[in-house]
This record gives sequence, C-alpha cells and structure tokens, in this order.
Amino acid sequence: MSELNNLPDGFNALVVGATGGLGAALAARLAQESRLGRLYVSGRDAAAAGRVADEAATDRVQPLVMDVTEETSIEAAAARIRAEAGRLHLLVNCAGVLHDGAGLAPEKRWEDITPQALEQGFRVNAFGHVLVAKHCLGLMRHGDTAVLANVSARIGSIEDNGLGGWYTYRAAKAAQNQFTRTLAVECGRRARNVICVALHPGTTDTPLSKPFQGRVPAGKLFTPGYSAGCLLDVIGGLTARDNGSFLAWGGQRIPW
Amino acid sequence: MSELNNLPDGFNALVVGATGGLGAALAARLAQESRLGRLYVSGRDAAAAGRVADEAATDRVQPLVMDVTEETSIEAAAARIRAEAGRLHLLVNCAGVLHDGAGLAPEKRWEDITPQALEQGFRVNAFGHVLVAKHCLGLMRHGDTAVLANVSARIGSIEDNGLGGWYTYRAAKAAQNQFTRTLAVECGRRARNVICVALHPGTTDTPLSKPFQGRVPAGKLFTPGYSAGCLLDVIGGLTARDNGSFLAWGGQRIPW
Repeated sequence: MSELNNLPDGFNALVVGATGGLGAALAARLAQESRLGRLYVSGRDAAAAGRVADEAATDRVQPLVMDVTEETSIEAAAARIRAEAGRLHLLVNCAGVLHDGAGLAPEKRWEDITPQALEQGFRVNAFGHVLVAKHCLGLMRHGDTAVLANVSARIGSIEDNGLGGWYTYRAAKAAQNQFTRTLAVECGRRARNVICVALHPGTTDTPLSKPFQGRVPAGKLFTPGYSAGCLLDVIGGLTARDNGSFLAWGGQRIPW
Repeated sequence: MSELNNLPDGFNALVVGATGGLGAALAARLAQESRLGRLYVSGRDAAAAGRVADEAATDRVQPLVMDVTEETSIEAAAARIRAEAGRLHLLVNCAGVLHDGAGLAPEKRWEDITPQALEQGFRVNAFGHVLVAKHCLGLMRHGDTAVLANVSARIGSIEDNGLGGWYTYRAAKAAQNQFTRTLAVECGRRARNVICVALHPGTTDTPLSKPFQGRVPAGKLFTPGYSAGCLLDVIGGLTARDNGSFLAWGGQRIPW
C-alpha cells in the first residue's frame, strides 16, 4: 500500500486512460487506499471503463467516459466530477498511444514519418494532456495539496536521446513535457497548492510496449502493478519543490 | 559576408519560409555568397517567393512554392530541386508561426489553449520541419559536408522555461527540437556528411515578434539582417561534432 500522505483525508482522484495496462493498475492500487474519497477511472470506451471500475468492487470508484482527443468529451467529464465530487486532489494522466494498428507505429527511419501518424500521435500523447489539464485544474485549485501527474517516458527526453528512431512518440512526449513544465510555472502563480510533474514509469509489460520488449534488459520489464506502486510512491513523496520536474519510477530526476 | 567554408564550392542551398522576415534576410545574405551554386527560396505564396528571388537579382536564386503543412507540396519542391540541382548542401528551415490573426496566438493562461490552435501551431512549427527533412535528406546525403539547420527558439527549451505561457509555441518548438535531435542521430548512422542542428536566432524584429517586442531588453532586438548574419556565422563554423546540438545566434549551447 502506498502512502499518499501529502494528500488530504478523503482525497478525490482521476486516472485518465485507466483502461490501459498501467492506468488499470494505478486504479486498482488507488481503490485500496483507505483514505480515498472518490476515484474516477476514465477511458474512451464506456464498457472498458466500467470493467475497470467493477474490478474495484466499491462504489467509491466510478467509471467515466473521456476521449482525450475530443475537447467536448473532456469538458463533460470535468463537469461531472465538479457536480459529484466538487474537488480533485490527484490527476494521473496515462492516456498514450505508440502503435494503433492503423498507420501509427514507431518509425525506424525518417522515410516512415507520415502526417497522419504525427497528428494522431500528438493528439493522444501531447494535446490530450494539456487539454485535460485545462479543464481539470479548476477542480484542483483549493486549500489542500493536489498533484497533476502526466505519465511521460524517458524516451521523450531530448538530452537523453542517443538511439534515435520513434520520431512521433519521442517528439510528442517532448511536447507533453513542455506542456507539463509550462503548467507547473502557471500553477506556481495561480494554483500554488498544485504540484505538476512528468513521470517515467519504466518499461511496463502492457500492450503498448509488447512489440518492443525484446530489447528490454532482464529485470527491467516491470509488471503494471509494480510500476503503479512505484509511481504512487513517487507521487506520495512530492512536495512543492518538485513542481515542474521530470521524475523516473524510482524518484530520480531525468534531464529534459 | 559570412564564410561558409565548411560547404563545398558551388554549394546549393534552400531557405524554407524565405518569405518571412528572417528567411528573406538569410536569402539576401546567401545570394551574395560568391561560392553559392543555386539558392532556392521557398514560401507558401508564389508571388511572395518570387519577390524574394527578384530582390537577389541573379538567376542563381530561384523561387519555390512550398507549403510545409502539405506533404505533397514538400515532395514536389524536393523533386524539382533534385531535377534541377541534384544535390543540396544547406537547408535552413525558418517556417514558423506564433500568431495568425485567426485563432492562433500565444496563450497567457491554460484557459486560452484550443485544439484548433494546437493543431495549426504544431503543423507549421514542428511537423513541417520533420516532413521537409524527410523529403530533402535524400538530396543531402553525398560526399560533401551538408548542414540541416532548423530555426528553433530559446523559448522552446524545457529546461530554460521559467516564465511559462505561450503553450502551443513552446511545446511545438520542443517537439521540433526532439525531431532535430532524432534526425541528427539517424544522420550519424545513414548520412554522416550531414550536420543537423537547432538554432536560436535571438529576438528578431519581424512580424512574428512584433506584438511582443515591448518586453525585449534594449539592444536585444536584432534586425533580420543581423540575426541572419549571426546564424550564417554559426552555420559556417559547424563541424561533425556539433551534430545534434541546440545553438544560439552567438554559438552558445542552449539546454534542451
């Protein structure tokens, strides 16, 4: 069990992209927190979000339909949280796509880059994060500590890019990181209770990483439950000083 | 006069976005280089590109229609260069948009972010750069040194972001920087003669910066001609060791 002692008793949480491997594991862990108020688990697909909520077997956990590529869908989801829960203390955005079986796939060479894949990859991996923040930060601005955690990836680090390839995913994550950093600066002015961070979950055994697990060193492929536990440990240890940082699953800082 | 001594005699160059303030100044300086072979000056608008070429008053300088938001347009422009000039030794991509009078403007607050502005800003400032590279790198892979310079901006640095705001522009430039870095890694494998860099021109007195010049310290607002001269000095001093770096107008490295 993680200790999210920086959040108040009865804290409300939202996991965006909770129907993915990591998101579902985060939802399962959060559902067990004794100090949890409400937890919203969102996904594009109502039935899939419903299954994640059903797993938790407590009415503290509610499914929420949210397609991060449609602003009206984000807006409606935020309005429902406002009406039912009023405030939000933790938002973990795990929505992400690396390959979709329909044209989006990690590029090996510059010849593989297409405008269609760029647009789809950025909509989900970058624009979705900043649009969710746009509509949810109003719920997070209050007297208690709140955490906005965007799930990023070390592969989005420009400084750390020595291998190349994966143009769309790398650049969308770099854009997402810049959004997180810019949100952190604005929270420092307008929502000083909010800590905004970018998190790297490690390489996790989910459908997203499945085709690429061959290159992962032994012992470095995490179960979703392990990654989720690590991320909640990092989140539980955050203080205002961490606002605007990029942290790995073990708490290490990652260069931008 | 700059000294582009790292490029061969008779080098061919392409300035993308040559109808903007900085692009036109780069074109004017390059047109005076005695060692220049051909120079293509591209813009979305044929008449505007024609005027930039006419200013040079030499048939070494040719206008080229290229809309960086339309891949077919990029492809056709690259095909024309291949047919006429064969090889390219210098590509400076200055295409960029900060405000368009039609919904795209630098955001002051997260509430100002819109999906429409995100899509337009990224198409021009990030996707355009990597798609131009996709179609032009085949012309740049040869036995002589070649330079692919993407005009970026210090404001795209995530590390250096202490002021916030300008979400779309900042994040699109961060994405563009990640594309440049990823291209540099791939050039290191497949096109070792090519040096790929991201360049910061300083704040230049052009229509792009016009509404925001009030905050520029005295002496720090450059004429387009001064910025262009500085960038060509930086380009002329590049060696293979600089591949994959982010450099300011004076040659200083900028953190990502």
